[in-house]
Parts: sequence; C-alpha cells; structure tokens
Amino acid sequence: MEFYKKSQILNAFSHEQKLIHQSKHLLLELYRCDCNKLNDESFLRCVLNRAAKLANATVLNLISNKFKPQGVTAIALLAESHISIHTWPESSYSAVDIFTCGKNMKPELASQYLIESLMAKEHSLRVIERNPPSAVHKKIRTAI
Amino acid sequence: MEFYKKSQILNAFSHEQKLIHQSKHLLLELYRCDCNKLNDESFLRCVLNRAAKLANATVLNLISNKFKPQGVTAIALLAESHISIHTWPESSYSAVDIFTCGKNMKPELASQYLIESLMAKEHSLRVIERNPPSAVHKKIRTAI
Repeated sequence: MEFYKKSQILNAFSHEQKLIHQSKHLLLELYRCDCNKLNDESFLRCVLNRAAKLANATVLNLISNKFKPQGVTAIALLAESHISIHTWPESSYSAVDIFTCGKNMKPELASQYLIESLMAKEHSLRVIERNPPSAVHKKIRTAI
Repeated sequence: MEFYKKSQILNAFSHEQKLIHQSKHLLLELYRCDCNKLNDESFLRCVLNRAAKLANATVLNLISNKFKPQGVTAIALLAESHISIHTWPESSYSAVDIFTCGKNMKPELASQYLIESLMAKEHSLRVIERNPPSAVHKKIRTAI
C-alpha cells in the first residue's frame, strides 16, 4: 500500500513534469535564406499562418509591417501564445520565435516548415522551456 | 604604423562584438502578480506601450486579445522587433518576451518596468543574445 502510494506520487510528478515541458519558446536564426522571399510581406503572412497550423495552434490575429528600404516583420497572435518573424533580406537573415503554451503543441513542425519555406541554407535553433506555474497547463481557456 | 593598424583592427573587432550584443531577447517570467492587472486588457496595452518607449523602441502596431474565462495576450510590433505579454490571472503569472534589435536599445528598462507595473513578487529573467550577421546592425531602415 505504501509502495502504491509512492508510485502514484511518482506518476503524478512525472505527469506534472511533462506538462511543464509543454510551454516552449523556440528561438530560430535563419541564415542564407532566399532574399526575395524575405522581402515578400504577403508570402511571409501566408507562411506564418501555415506554420501556426502545423504547430496545432489557432491564429487569432496576424499583423505585419514592411520596412524601407527592405525587410518585414510579421507576428501571429495565437490562442496558445505567438509566432514572430523579422527579416533582413539584405543579409539573407531572419530571426524567428515560436512560443507555444498548451497541450499537443508541435512548435518543432512550425520551425522545420519555416526553415524550408525560406530556403535557409543554415540555421540554429534554441529550444527554451518557459516556467509557468504547473496550474497554467490545467486551465482551459478560449478566445473571446 | 604596424601597431596602429593592429590597434585599429582590434577596435573595429571590439566595436563589431559590441554591436552583435545589441540584438537581445529577454525572456521574463512574472510570478505572484496582481491578478486584476493581469486581466485588464486596456491596462496591459498601456503598460506595453510605455515599456516599449522606455526601451527606446518605436511602436508600429499593438494588438491584444482577451480570453475566456480570463487572461490576456498583448503584442507590440516594434520598428526594432517586438514585445509580447501573455497572462494567466488565475495563476498570478505572466510570460513576457522583449526582443530588440538595434542601437541604443534598453530592453532591461522595459523589463524592470513590467515587473513593477504588474506588481510581481517574484520573477526570473533570461537574457539571450540573438545571432544575426554583423551587417544587420549597420543597416538603417524605417517603417513604411
């Protein structure tokens, strides 16, 4: 009985740990991308939308801005946090972050899709675990 | 003369290194915040706007979303990248990220202001250096 209780606690702990790991922030640097794609605002909005869907996320709003002489920023506000992309076509570089907080999220798929869509010949990806209180993952909320 | 040249090179390198460090991504976890403030969409929009100004950034767009039964996401698209805030009032928790890429940015001031405005009794801050090609910092671009 004593052992059973301990086992229960361990299972609960393991489950809790797993939930905590579901709040991920991916920082992605994309190098040697296709310059034209990095300067195409409409294309980047479509790509961001598709990336969000691949991550199992729901896009609630998507904004973008084109810079002079070049460069674009696009940000998707998700029900599960956000994805942003900032581009410098003159350097063939883009800085992306994908922050997902929720169950069954697949931010890595979004990351892989962005690498391929922008034809990045080099990239670096850092996966950072955010540290919300564990209760955050148990709450269900919907967009108004 | 030889020494002078070397010194010039070293100075240029040091300057370059310094510039590289100007692309910062701050990940901020705010715990034990004021729940009412975390659920106040208008307040959070004002706070984000002020935080951006303190960071020496220019806000080009600001979007937000209120969730059911509670919680808010607000994101500021900056000329110099973005600031986002996601709140879970039921857990007195907020996840913030401040990404600034440019000269004379002061993201740490924005971070400190957010900690104080949301009355966070605990927080953790991770400062992550993004790695753009050095040329990115030499380009000047403006919002269209």
